[in-house]
Amino acid sequence: MPAPSTHPAPRAPGLGDLPARYRQVRRHSLRLAAPLSAEDQCVQSMPDASPTKWHLAHITWFFESLLLAPHAPGYRAFDPRWHYLFNSYYEALGPRHPRPQRGLLTRPSLDEVHAYRRHVDAAVEALLADPAALPRIGPILTLGLHHEQQHQELLLTDILHAFACHPLLPAYREPSAPALRLAAQAPGPRWLAHDGGTVHIGHAGPGFAFDNEGPRHAVLLRPFAIADRLVSCGEYARFVADGGYQRSGLWLSDGWATVQAGGWRHPAYWLAPGDPRLALRGIGAAEGWHVFGLDGPRPLDAQAPVSQLSFYEAAAYAEWAGARLPTEAEWEAACALPGFAQATGHAWQWTRSAYDPYPGFRPLPGPAAEYNGKFMVGQIVLRGGSLATPPGHARPTYRNFFPPAARWQFSGLRLARDLP
Amino acid sequence: MPAPSTHPAPRAPGLGDLPARYRQVRRHSLRLAAPLSAEDQCVQSMPDASPTKWHLAHITWFFESLLLAPHAPGYRAFDPRWHYLFNSYYEALGPRHPRPQRGLLTRPSLDEVHAYRRHVDAAVEALLADPAALPRIGPILTLGLHHEQQHQELLLTDILHAFACHPLLPAYREPSAPALRLAAQAPGPRWLAHDGGTVHIGHAGPGFAFDNEGPRHAVLLRPFAIADRLVSCGEYARFVADGGYQRSGLWLSDGWATVQAGGWRHPAYWLAPGDPRLALRGIGAAEGWHVFGLDGPRPLDAQAPVSQLSFYEAAAYAEWAGARLPTEAEWEAACALPGFAQATGHAWQWTRSAYDPYPGFRPLPGPAAEYNGKFMVGQIVLRGGSLATPPGHARPTYRNFFPPAARWQFSGLRLARDLP
Amino acid sequence: MPAPSTHPAPRAPGLGDLPARYRQVRRHSLRLAAPLSAEDQCVQSMPDASPTKWHLAHITWFFESLLLAPHAPGYRAFDPRWHYLFNSYYEALGPRHPRPQRGLLTRPSLDEVHAYRRHVDAAVEALLADPAALPRIGPILTLGLHHEQQHQELLLTDILHAFACHPLLPAYREPSAPALRLAAQAPGPRWLAHDGGTVHIGHAGPGFAFDNEGPRHAVLLRPFAIADRLVSCGEYARFVADGGYQRSGLWLSDGWATVQAGGWRHPAYWLAPGDPRLALRGIGAAEGWHVFGLDGPRPLDAQAPVSQLSFYEAAAYAEWAGARLPTEAEWEAACALPGFAQATGHAWQWTRSAYDPYPGFRPLPGPAAEYNGKFMVGQIVLRGGSLATPPGHARPTYRNFFPPAARWQFSGLRLARDLP
Amino acid sequence: MPAPSTHPAPRAPGLGDLPARYRQVRRHSLRLAAPLSAEDQCVQSMPDASPTKWHLAHITWFFESLLLAPHAPGYRAFDPRWHYLFNSYYEALGPRHPRPQRGLLTRPSLDEVHAYRRHVDAAVEALLADPAALPRIGPILTLGLHHEQQHQELLLTDILHAFACHPLLPAYREPSAPALRLAAQAPGPRWLAHDGGTVHIGHAGPGFAFDNEGPRHAVLLRPFAIADRLVSCGEYARFVADGGYQRSGLWLSDGWATVQAGGWRHPAYWLAPGDPRLALRGIGAAEGWHVFGLDGPRPLDAQAPVSQLSFYEAAAYAEWAGARLPTEAEWEAACALPGFAQATGHAWQWTRSAYDPYPGFRPLPGPAAEYNGKFMVGQIVLRGGSLATPPGHARPTYRNFFPPAARWQFSGLRLARDLP
Repeated sequence: MPAPSTHPAPRAPGLGDLPARYRQVRRHSLRLAAPLSAEDQCVQSMPDASPTKWHLAHITWFFESLLLAPHAPGYRAFDPRWHYLFNSYYEALGPRHPRPQRGLLTRPSLDEVHAYRRHVDAAVEALLADPAALPRIGPILTLGLHHEQQHQELLLTDILHAFACHPLLPAYREPSAPALRLAAQAPGPRWLAHDGGTVHIGHAGPGFAFDNEGPRHAVLLRPFAIADRLVSCGEYARFVADGGYQRSGLWLSDGWATVQAGGWRHPAYWLAPGDPRLALRGIGAAEGWHVFGLDGPRPLDAQAPVSQLSFYEAAAYAEWAGARLPTEAEWEAACALPGFAQATGHAWQWTRSAYDPYPGFRPLPGPAAEYNGKFMVGQIVLRGGSLATPPGHARPTYRNFFPPAARWQFSGLRLARDLP
Repeated sequence: MPAPSTHPAPRAPGLGDLPARYRQVRRHSLRLAAPLSAEDQCVQSMPDASPTKWHLAHITWFFESLLLAPHAPGYRAFDPRWHYLFNSYYEALGPRHPRPQRGLLTRPSLDEVHAYRRHVDAAVEALLADPAALPRIGPILTLGLHHEQQHQELLLTDILHAFACHPLLPAYREPSAPALRLAAQAPGPRWLAHDGGTVHIGHAGPGFAFDNEGPRHAVLLRPFAIADRLVSCGEYARFVADGGYQRSGLWLSDGWATVQAGGWRHPAYWLAPGDPRLALRGIGAAEGWHVFGLDGPRPLDAQAPVSQLSFYEAAAYAEWAGARLPTEAEWEAACALPGFAQATGHAWQWTRSAYDPYPGFRPLPGPAAEYNGKFMVGQIVLRGGSLATPPGHARPTYRNFFPPAARWQFSGLRLARDLP
Repeated sequence: MPAPSTHPAPRAPGLGDLPARYRQVRRHSLRLAAPLSAEDQCVQSMPDASPTKWHLAHITWFFESLLLAPHAPGYRAFDPRWHYLFNSYYEALGPRHPRPQRGLLTRPSLDEVHAYRRHVDAAVEALLADPAALPRIGPILTLGLHHEQQHQELLLTDILHAFACHPLLPAYREPSAPALRLAAQAPGPRWLAHDGGTVHIGHAGPGFAFDNEGPRHAVLLRPFAIADRLVSCGEYARFVADGGYQRSGLWLSDGWATVQAGGWRHPAYWLAPGDPRLALRGIGAAEGWHVFGLDGPRPLDAQAPVSQLSFYEAAAYAEWAGARLPTEAEWEAACALPGFAQATGHAWQWTRSAYDPYPGFRPLPGPAAEYNGKFMVGQIVLRGGSLATPPGHARPTYRNFFPPAARWQFSGLRLARDLP
Repeated sequence: MPAPSTHPAPRAPGLGDLPARYRQVRRHSLRLAAPLSAEDQCVQSMPDASPTKWHLAHITWFFESLLLAPHAPGYRAFDPRWHYLFNSYYEALGPRHPRPQRGLLTRPSLDEVHAYRRHVDAAVEALLADPAALPRIGPILTLGLHHEQQHQELLLTDILHAFACHPLLPAYREPSAPALRLAAQAPGPRWLAHDGGTVHIGHAGPGFAFDNEGPRHAVLLRPFAIADRLVSCGEYARFVADGGYQRSGLWLSDGWATVQAGGWRHPAYWLAPGDPRLALRGIGAAEGWHVFGLDGPRPLDAQAPVSQLSFYEAAAYAEWAGARLPTEAEWEAACALPGFAQATGHAWQWTRSAYDPYPGFRPLPGPAAEYNGKFMVGQIVLRGGSLATPPGHARPTYRNFFPPAARWQFSGLRLARDLP
């Protein structure tokens, strides 16, 4: 999955592109699931993760419930009982299967879920065949596609978590070429300066954006510097070796409590030398640290961006490094600076901004109101994009968010610091 | 699965029968799993239940580890890493995959587990081909077959639990003929009298028994009466209707706490009129109580024995009925009485006996020592056998056991009372 | 405790005032504890609350550890072992007694804790007697006094929580005159308009402030309106009566999960008509809603500000009322507007701002670094002050903070809305 | 508290003794509480333990509710609301304060509880003054006194647990003379042989006994040997030193899980060399193991019986020692053997018998029915008596019981083994 290292300037797709785009996005979901057996696609490794099959069905349900039900006259639900199974969190759309029990859904089978997708695709195609319908259905269809792209990333993060819990550490895919790196990486990052002052952040204009990205508004920034690239595994390994996980003074209070309660000693997907799971593969302690990823466990690549970090770990690293995390406004203002690399394609970047509503924020009307706004407490904003983010899905204004203890996402960090 | 209603007089199989018996038992496991998809066979619905696939692999591992490893010269393990995956609880045999995470084992696939079974079967057959080896391997092979039969029952109880957690309540099999009933069942049971005095309980003699069934020993009984049959769903429904689950005075203290903490209002697999899962199937409230079982949800059959009860519920019912549960010694002494029906083939029967060792009990030597003895605390003895007990597996001396709150077994009750 | 309804313009106390101020603050703590028995002062009703006696000892320990140990030559600790007992959360100062077990400290006795206070007071007085020492010890002494004042409020919130858990609902004090109210309160609040634009928030200047209140910095605001007073119990009662606690659409997602898990139906300290605890006092259902407070349970006063609300409840109310919570910058900018009433003296006011660091924030040097900064995640800012806030402790720049589910503080809300 | 080392032959007290006995038992409770401050008497260190003050009030409530309310015409409850506070577990007597929250009852004060005791004592004395009433009230009064004696032991176990949780390890009383020991204790115990056969166990005859001690009945025993004394700390220390807490094969399955979950490494009240709580008292690692008890922490006395053991620990020790625990019938049959020492006065003795009802057991009529029978599941029988058992309270037929993981009682063990 070669990913661009900066945000491309996306062309806002016109209505006429929608049919092709629909097919392409829908196909991509199946392609992501293809390497997985029916059993793999059914498993749920923790309450916060969902089975692949559930993702496949849920993103189909989204089109059925929000597009076809209100907009396709005469549409007949594939199986009305599945409405209960595949609603995620839309209270306005009725009761639903409890999230922590999604892994119990051995029925419907994967074949039936594929048939469900085909049934819904056929109905959507029928709608799309009528050009007059496009202006009416365009917005919700577009939202559905971006919704599906979000689940494409989650599909990968969730199966990776399941495999990380498996004692034999299976690989999602055959090891591919090593991840893209900056050639001749300097010992530290290069610092890009920003003068501060009034900047405008948030989405405006013709392209698609989620409701939480607006309204576009002005903010005042102080002068600051931001690293040109992400923190690398090699850098983070020095933090680990320096006792980073044993020094309370580096951590936020909740973070330190989590470190101790969870026995954290290094990033979640790192395998220390001598880990018994490495031994089961015949890898001895002398072969050093490994990192588990989509390719299975591989030797730690010192220049690859560190990933699967929690916010707590990112903030503690920044403290140790004598720096800080950027705010989301700083990140957005800086990402257009020349030299700003690895904006996306590697790991989402924790910011020092809680996920609060922008001034003047209003949720979407209808059931989609629950899409973003109701999560605006207890979460931290991440910016950029990751190697698992589908092409064309990332944007400079994109506000991703997760709780501060989450460490199963493709999430890393980029440093910032104050300028006088 | 037409089951005999009394314990047959089992003929102790000779060594010469072992090859045929091995094949028959092994085949039966696969037959039980056959109606289930790979996804069904992978799911784990609670920490105490195991996936079908895990059962299939574990009972194969038992032969590999306790029979082939010590007794088959040159045997090569199918995959040495699986030793970690499929050990259940044998501390002496090394570390093992945590029980609550058995459902994460999407790998190995079901096909690979089948190949594992074939690999082990071939090695066992090679051993069996040498008649001279039989005296040496007979005891552990026999234990392995009885072990596999125990897991055959658990396979059914566990998948039934998984399906009971599924909002669509799938059926394990097509509804078959109604369960065997006593013709012209009387309003209450018939009471069979026993004079008490010195009786001998426990296993002795040539046939197979688990270590916990011995030594055979004498006990003194007072005169007592015991019901000729199990408590029926109709009888239990009167207890429910009489407020049985709201009257603390009927319950043991731990039972009452469990009733309140769990919100129990009826047996776990009963579906009250108006249950939303019935509504999803188009069954209205007017159609009354249903009971979930291997055939899916079916209308409550007043004459069928009540099942999937916890000990707490069994004891509360007995209190309500002005009777009590029999001790295990009473049960064993009475099961030979003329007219003692439904000894097995319907539901295991909770006794009023904690699972303590018999006087003089010694565990088996070697790793099999962990088979029974280490569970002798916190459990209650059940006697008899159920509709899920494989043919030939039940015995009058059989001591089944579960914790008092367990309500996912085929477990019911038979009443007893003191005689003056 | 007659409290001013607006923030007074505090005069920054000079160094010369310190001795008098020290005595006054220290005396006030004892006065607050005076109505409580030794048993009352020892109890801990939940992990987040602390016993009165522990508060009294901890605020003394603060002076001993941060003032006397480094600055009073020859000072001998009252009992070196108490360092372990009464450290709250200062990792840099060594291990400490676990917070949830503070209620186990029946020893030292209350008398011994009083002796500890006298011992430390004597040593502080000796230091204060040397005017030359004041410039050196002034900052940490001043911090210690503000620290003690914070615990004075917590002492009241915590004992109120303990009494709220007591089935007999004891009163902390004899019922006094009713709380101060706005005469002729209008049906709704009056809306005060603010033009937005660049405003400066945060502390600067000579007076004391906590490190988290700075640096003072400019922010850009949009035009907004803010209510002139707090939401009253009568208004909140209409929200309750309108099914506010049953309508998921009004709640943030985490809030709704908390409402359901906790069975919330009204504010934590409200007693519904017919509550058995009211019945124990001979108060019948016809006498309506009551509210538990420092005076014990009293009839709901429709015009008193609602209090002991969580952020979740405050945000749901605002949604129901077609308004929103102000951000902390809006609150601070608006509190100087003419007509802005109830700024303090009634209830802290939840804002719609997560507790993030101000731009350029640096913690205090030394152990006091742990005072504020390490809590800057997962918390929400409250502004203003409450009836339990000691006189002179509140400031317009004051950033109080609690987790969003906390409902044992004197915490209410003030509405805001966008202006075009 | 010099305690007899064997069960005395108790004289059944006649009705005429009751007034004196009442006064003596009631006085003893206050004497036990006397060394404790009001704060000490209010604390609850875990849900299974109760505050001293609660014990004092509850045993008074027992007389008020079960003796005075039905039998003293015109009796007026001291405070009717206290009925809710001090009912322990009698469902038939109405709702009650939750057990885990007994420590919140700072009100009523200790003085008020003392006044409550005086109020009830006066009413009981008035009843006792009428000799004609004695036959009617004798049984419930006697039960109340034995009930109070049980709580006298619990009062000590519970405050000892609270003090064991206190980082400064306060002593309940000044260190007294060392515990009574067998002079010239042999390296191992002496084994007393019993021929087995039919023995009668359980209470019969004129003296008082709890309902669970009957009916007296015959049991068949095999020949066995039983140790003449309890296992000593020195012997148990060898088990610890031999890796007893690291060897799964010695433990019951539930026990091993508990050892691992709780991080058990030695008895709960033992303090390993170097324990930081010893260091706080200036006791260095070179001074070896200590044991916490009513006298505070004292050097381990190799010849003193080991105490505060769980059943799991007792059973594991017996396995390690190549012996077993006696059944309760064996214990009762053996305790009359010549040389059977330490029957009571040191530690209750775990048996290998689950707490099941005796054949023919019927609970007491009325509310006292809940006294024993409803606990007959999930518990293990202990026999004998401890140094905290009030004089005259122990009996050879006494069936004490606790869950197998309980390790805050004065509970040890005596070994047994089979004879051929």
